[in-house]
Amino acid sequence: MHQFDSPNEACGAFGICVPGLDIAQPTYSAMYALQHRGQEAAGIATCDGKTAYIHKGLGLVSQVFNEDNLSHLHGHLGIGHTRYSTTGSPRLSNTQPYILETLDGPLAIAHNGNLINAPQLRRKLLEGGVGLSTSTDSELIIHLLASARGSWLQRIRQMMAIAEGAYALTILTRDAIYGVRDPWGLRPLVLGELENGYAIASESCAFAPIGARVVREIEPGEIVRIDQEGHKIVQGAPAEQAAFCTFEQIYFARPDSILNGRLVHQARQALGRQLARDAPIEADIVVSVPDSGTPHAIGYAQESGIEYSEGLIKSHYIGRTFIQPTDRQRKFGVAMKFNPLPDNLRGQRVVLVDDSIVRGNTCGPLVQLLRDAGATEIHMRVACPPIRFPCFMGIDMANQSELIAAQKSVEEIRDHICADSLAYLSVDGMMNALRSENGYCNACFTGQYPFETPVLELELELKEKEKFAGVLGGS
Amino acid sequence: MHQFDSPNEACGAFGICVPGLDIAQPTYSAMYALQHRGQEAAGIATCDGKTAYIHKGLGLVSQVFNEDNLSHLHGHLGIGHTRYSTTGSPRLSNTQPYILETLDGPLAIAHNGNLINAPQLRRKLLEGGVGLSTSTDSELIIHLLASARGSWLQRIRQMMAIAEGAYALTILTRDAIYGVRDPWGLRPLVLGELENGYAIASESCAFAPIGARVVREIEPGEIVRIDQEGHKIVQGAPAEQAAFCTFEQIYFARPDSILNGRLVHQARQALGRQLARDAPIEADIVVSVPDSGTPHAIGYAQESGIEYSEGLIKSHYIGRTFIQPTDRQRKFGVAMKFNPLPDNLRGQRVVLVDDSIVRGNTCGPLVQLLRDAGATEIHMRVACPPIRFPCFMGIDMANQSELIAAQKSVEEIRDHICADSLAYLSVDGMMNALRSENGYCNACFTGQYPFETPVLELELELKEKEKFAGVLGGS
Amino acid sequence: MHQFDSPNEACGAFGICVPGLDIAQPTYSAMYALQHRGQEAAGIATCDGKTAYIHKGLGLVSQVFNEDNLSHLHGHLGIGHTRYSTTGSPRLSNTQPYILETLDGPLAIAHNGNLINAPQLRRKLLEGGVGLSTSTDSELIIHLLASARGSWLQRIRQMMAIAEGAYALTILTRDAIYGVRDPWGLRPLVLGELENGYAIASESCAFAPIGARVVREIEPGEIVRIDQEGHKIVQGAPAEQAAFCTFEQIYFARPDSILNGRLVHQARQALGRQLARDAPIEADIVVSVPDSGTPHAIGYAQESGIEYSEGLIKSHYIGRTFIQPTDRQRKFGVAMKFNPLPDNLRGQRVVLVDDSIVRGNTCGPLVQLLRDAGATEIHMRVACPPIRFPCFMGIDMANQSELIAAQKSVEEIRDHICADSLAYLSVDGMMNALRSENGYCNACFTGQYPFETPVLELELELKEKEKFAGVLGGS
Amino acid sequence: MHQFDSPNEACGAFGICVPGLDIAQPTYSAMYALQHRGQEAAGIATCDGKTAYIHKGLGLVSQVFNEDNLSHLHGHLGIGHTRYSTTGSPRLSNTQPYILETLDGPLAIAHNGNLINAPQLRRKLLEGGVGLSTSTDSELIIHLLASARGSWLQRIRQMMAIAEGAYALTILTRDAIYGVRDPWGLRPLVLGELENGYAIASESCAFAPIGARVVREIEPGEIVRIDQEGHKIVQGAPAEQAAFCTFEQIYFARPDSILNGRLVHQARQALGRQLARDAPIEADIVVSVPDSGTPHAIGYAQESGIEYSEGLIKSHYIGRTFIQPTDRQRKFGVAMKFNPLPDNLRGQRVVLVDDSIVRGNTCGPLVQLLRDAGATEIHMRVACPPIRFPCFMGIDMANQSELIAAQKSVEEIRDHICADSLAYLSVDGMMNALRSENGYCNACFTGQYPFETPVLELELELKEKEKFAGVLGGS
Repeated sequence: MHQFDSPNEACGAFGICVPGLDIAQPTYSAMYALQHRGQEAAGIATCDGKTAYIHKGLGLVSQVFNEDNLSHLHGHLGIGHTRYSTTGSPRLSNTQPYILETLDGPLAIAHNGNLINAPQLRRKLLEGGVGLSTSTDSELIIHLLASARGSWLQRIRQMMAIAEGAYALTILTRDAIYGVRDPWGLRPLVLGELENGYAIASESCAFAPIGARVVREIEPGEIVRIDQEGHKIVQGAPAEQAAFCTFEQIYFARPDSILNGRLVHQARQALGRQLARDAPIEADIVVSVPDSGTPHAIGYAQESGIEYSEGLIKSHYIGRTFIQPTDRQRKFGVAMKFNPLPDNLRGQRVVLVDDSIVRGNTCGPLVQLLRDAGATEIHMRVACPPIRFPCFMGIDMANQSELIAAQKSVEEIRDHICADSLAYLSVDGMMNALRSENGYCNACFTGQYPFETPVLELELELKEKEKFAGVLGGS
Repeated sequence: MHQFDSPNEACGAFGICVPGLDIAQPTYSAMYALQHRGQEAAGIATCDGKTAYIHKGLGLVSQVFNEDNLSHLHGHLGIGHTRYSTTGSPRLSNTQPYILETLDGPLAIAHNGNLINAPQLRRKLLEGGVGLSTSTDSELIIHLLASARGSWLQRIRQMMAIAEGAYALTILTRDAIYGVRDPWGLRPLVLGELENGYAIASESCAFAPIGARVVREIEPGEIVRIDQEGHKIVQGAPAEQAAFCTFEQIYFARPDSILNGRLVHQARQALGRQLARDAPIEADIVVSVPDSGTPHAIGYAQESGIEYSEGLIKSHYIGRTFIQPTDRQRKFGVAMKFNPLPDNLRGQRVVLVDDSIVRGNTCGPLVQLLRDAGATEIHMRVACPPIRFPCFMGIDMANQSELIAAQKSVEEIRDHICADSLAYLSVDGMMNALRSENGYCNACFTGQYPFETPVLELELELKEKEKFAGVLGGS
Repeated sequence: MHQFDSPNEACGAFGICVPGLDIAQPTYSAMYALQHRGQEAAGIATCDGKTAYIHKGLGLVSQVFNEDNLSHLHGHLGIGHTRYSTTGSPRLSNTQPYILETLDGPLAIAHNGNLINAPQLRRKLLEGGVGLSTSTDSELIIHLLASARGSWLQRIRQMMAIAEGAYALTILTRDAIYGVRDPWGLRPLVLGELENGYAIASESCAFAPIGARVVREIEPGEIVRIDQEGHKIVQGAPAEQAAFCTFEQIYFARPDSILNGRLVHQARQALGRQLARDAPIEADIVVSVPDSGTPHAIGYAQESGIEYSEGLIKSHYIGRTFIQPTDRQRKFGVAMKFNPLPDNLRGQRVVLVDDSIVRGNTCGPLVQLLRDAGATEIHMRVACPPIRFPCFMGIDMANQSELIAAQKSVEEIRDHICADSLAYLSVDGMMNALRSENGYCNACFTGQYPFETPVLELELELKEKEKFAGVLGGS
Repeated sequence: MHQFDSPNEACGAFGICVPGLDIAQPTYSAMYALQHRGQEAAGIATCDGKTAYIHKGLGLVSQVFNEDNLSHLHGHLGIGHTRYSTTGSPRLSNTQPYILETLDGPLAIAHNGNLINAPQLRRKLLEGGVGLSTSTDSELIIHLLASARGSWLQRIRQMMAIAEGAYALTILTRDAIYGVRDPWGLRPLVLGELENGYAIASESCAFAPIGARVVREIEPGEIVRIDQEGHKIVQGAPAEQAAFCTFEQIYFARPDSILNGRLVHQARQALGRQLARDAPIEADIVVSVPDSGTPHAIGYAQESGIEYSEGLIKSHYIGRTFIQPTDRQRKFGVAMKFNPLPDNLRGQRVVLVDDSIVRGNTCGPLVQLLRDAGATEIHMRVACPPIRFPCFMGIDMANQSELIAAQKSVEEIRDHICADSLAYLSVDGMMNALRSENGYCNACFTGQYPFETPVLELELELKEKEKFAGVLGGS
């Protein structure tokens, strides 16, 4: 899937406790590995058992942090956050971790996900006399924790009892780091072990750079506490019907992470193999839309016996281009990111495999690119079902009106992108490949949300929130 | 008084309501006029009766704002703030106005002053489950207002009932702007009238650039509300024994402001005249330490009949110099800011008049400068009494150990600065010139604070606060 | 004269040689004192007898330099430059000193002034195969020096033989610093002496902060060389009829500098006294347009016997305001910079003294300001003649069409600014006060330029240059 | 090859002429495609037949340019440059294109390569009275052109007659764009054709995004001129023994570019196949060091019949990390850029294919990474010969002392990186795969340079240049 046609993940969270060690540098390394979960802003909060320290800013992890500011983040306890914002221009005030002073010492949180009853929680807090300074769900969570009573564990449980939606949290207190996963398990969270301590991360790929190894994934509704004593996992709220986000498997998570017990790269190859079984075609080569479609394409090639070949080279220079496409450029837009390898394509019947199609605005130019490079037939294969419904659980999927599959039939899409054939993986096929019948949230494909809240109402509330964002906007 | 030897004012506040007009531009103009009350940061919050808008940043008013960001600040209601920070490096998170969403719409405040029972208020809020994100008094005030019950007027009264110390506030709500002055009247606040609306400012100098005229000064303990209906002044808390800050008259306020019913420039000339009566000397010319000592020097010249003459030229290029003084530079340090006019000084007996002496580290070099330029005698005259005690009500006076008059006798100071004679104005003389016997806070001269809180305890608490500032530090 | 109505000086130059000392810090201090001659950019080049070092940038001296970058500027030889640009947006590529490698080691120059035969010199260099990268006169000078033959002294003489116009230069080579003043003496240059070395500066005010004292002013056509051996002054080109810029005396130079043997502050008081003799008026107080008009006003008061009084307070907060004046603001524009002191003005007949009027766009609002504050009569007195002609020798005087005195008679101007009376100093009166009959360039008053080049032709060439500036524009 | 172990290409050049079209936007697109040839700085110069325009800055193409500054670059003629600097901190003054005014209008150049007789050319220019402001070869070239006589074609020929070394140039004049390739053909240059014009680029990958197609590569010693009339190719200097840089084929060029008549991706697969023939091994899977080693690995897999498998995932987040490796981090350094896929590696005998080894500091950690992930044997295969000699023709290869193959035997390297076996491609094998016996410069492998200049002397001169760079350093 091309970056101009991709859903946007909302945030990566991390937490660590290594008694006796200043953990700012390993936290930096881990967040660098979670960079794919948010490129807009980054932050780290630490605590030495007494005082808390924080630094955050707009930009990539490597832009926000340097040796100097890391050196001021003392302590053996730390959490980190990488952020992708879903609305408007990036704001420093929305950057996480959030931090507050409380009667029980500093409290900081890093949050990945999206609450669906935010308006209700918002009202509850305001009625309690708590003033709010941003429009984010994450600020609600930290104030719910701050205004609750009892031990931190008790407070977290109180928060879980009323917060509905997606949340994978890392929480810093004076004495410990907590990891919390919502009862549906919508967003991932995993526990790791270092030589002398423990870490918690949105994805296990954060562990390799700090020499940690996976202990186990945090299960829906669980709370993990890591401190000087070690780690302890308790149930924070009863697990609901599991609804792990399928899109983490298909696209978001890094291929070297482990999700639901399996390496993501393996899961994607399995999706490709399933796709080959479900939508076979006679062709000469299998080509991927790099980089995200590559494991699926390799799986397709393995299962189909058709040779895998590099047909498209992707430029990896990041840096948002500020140039608006002119007529001239629109024609060559995709060509700035992808270059075909004509020698591999000339005269070939090509299976072009991508992980997913969201808006569908890059498939057409890509098909044309291959055809211009000499491909005689182009058969598009997509390793997930058509995306027809918006996500309210933390993924910026585009509005429903922008989702091409919500507007067009498969045949119409095929026609639109000028492919010789087009096939998607079915929901059943996808679930089969992911070795699960019911543990996943497939709402974006099926419209069946894990919550009862009607979609239209949700959309309305989201709009309210955006309006509110304007109320307290600023730099 | 030289900038390197000056107490630092903590902040300027402004508020305005002009129905039917976008007030961002006049607010900008007014804050530009209040720039002398804080050069570290500036901010404006506005409201159109429904939505609030805010922009703030580090730097001068003219650096923080431009046409573009002003154009986004809609509405007929607005408050503004210029900030001088008293501790450590400037932080964006401490920049005002503070703004919160509440059940009754947006709430924003701009605060000038310092609370003396902040630790108690802090604890009270934390015990109520409110998490705090900064170590400022101003955040306490906004949360006290947000967590109180009833109308805004009722909430302000509740806040005034428990907050002790100096506060001149402008408060923005959905429907009105409020101005609040503490019961001691420590910091100034004045009401003005425009063609179709009203404004509130720390000083009346903010009115000229927006075409407003003074209605009257807000009295200790009063609350003024300005809205679509006009203005209304009520008593918010019983007035205490008036304790208006003498230093506003002597140094802080702009000479074209009106304080206690008189133009500050006039008050300063009166101080100079009193000084001439109390500490006469035979001399040829009166020279001021520009710019702040000039009105006092003119008063001295008028009363004494000795000719006023320009003897020192001051460079007005702002821009903190980052260069640490080397041995060589320390010798010439003052010479970078002041240049003598030898033709006016050669062979003259000089009365050198300054408004005040704080640390006393620039008087010596200035005396030397005049002597090198040919002055035969230099008689230093200071238009206020020796400063011997720290301020806990919003002025960054330096620690007591840094106050030269707390460490040395007048004769020792004279010797230290190598003047031929040195005289200060007495407290009685000062009060006489200011036409008041008891309405002023002279704690920095006398050690008699308007509150009962023992000084040492206060200092301890201030130190605690600084430490806490570290707890939640960050950018 | 108000900053919005002021001609702009083009640059300050400085040079220093102190054997055995790293001169970066004294150079910084000296440039800080020359800041009034250019706020757009600043730069320092140094040499340790072998290698040259340079740092320059856009902004004030205190913004461009810090301890770190100064610490990299090694050597006992140095030159510095502060720049005011006359056209368009500031460009880093136009920032001085310019520096080149030559066969005889590094060569750097700092230039104040403007050549009038730049197009001819430009052509000569281009014909010689030298490519030029900017449109500045200063680049022409450095290339003329680089492409000449012989010793540096010989090269400077060759350059002086063909360059016509205003130039005060400091030149850095491997072994010495040179100071050069054009044969007309249009721009000032003065030699100073430190404990162990020498310095050269546009104005003597640069000497005080570095502990230097004036040796003597460099005369028209002279070259001074300072090096390990001391200093040596030689004639570089025959002196022409002296044509020192009157405006340096009236407005540009700092009052504590010495020009033509007299303290500038004294010269300005003398201009004010002459003005009182030439244009007396019955009045109650003399008020200045601060700060630049103050010495003239004091002189006027001294001579006329009318009391000098502060009537206008000027805000010294620098920082260009980006806000375009709206109708509302135009009315209050001047009020943001000047505030009247009504108590001093009420019921008074005022003589308002300014050093000069260029465009005339601030006098009117100032007169109105005084009148609103209660002045009953306002008599404007200007301490120089009407400015009617543009300057081609380094001062950005505005186009002739913008000069109010080139468009209106004195009576029309009086009417325009709504003063009760208006009088200018005459050319003869001015020359009398400056104790000189013919040593000054009064072209901006009289249209008699020190060069034969017809004005219109010059204007044409200047336009060509501006066009050319576009040719090689950039960042 | 890992970025921390890669030679650095010095620059990409581009030129374009499309009569009637403003070419700033296509130039931007083309430079975006040449971003891999230099990420330090970028610039564009254009000309509309009369006036030249330029914008350049430090950073990526997408950072330096935006719609606003592109809109000021008028004209149908343009050149662009992306820069990689070889020494010290990036400097704006070294950013290209360089531009000069000459008697024949504007002249600008974009240069890729390195001259080996720069010191001689430098002296020649200085002796001619031309002052130089940088230490770059490129400034020498533009001044050689500016100071030469005759038509631009004649001047280019004069320059070619005396410049020795590597240079691929694009040159902008008032009427035409020129492309110039040195007589040895060391650096690539290719001509393309658009609908209504022509373009010249370092690599053909720049053509796809602007809708151009390859006409032909510029041959050694050729000059191409493109203008309103079309294009014309002439011989500028006699071709020398061809010495095209092998490293462009192996690593630098983008895989979708055409070099020496063949798609680079194909050439790299051919190198991998040759490697499989020359250094076979019994193994289970072939794994590449992504991304640059992937085509070679695919070629190896194809020829050997061993399955190609993804074993390492590379993070594509650019952004130099400022964090110095601590002991802890050094251990995990490579792990921040590469993540293994254990499921693909466990129990496997792995052939690890990389395109080249320079310093050898990342191979060891990579081998360890694979072993930790479960690989039982790791056989390193390198698709070029050992690099033993420095490059003086434009590639920043590291000093000879840093080249691991200059210090250690193949067996010692194998031992150093802990591989089970290690084999390099031979020079003969490489030339065979590249279908050439003598057209390449293999100096870095063989020490046989295309010029007679002894290596040691060159190194000395390079050091001189670096020292000189210090002489004229700055911002």
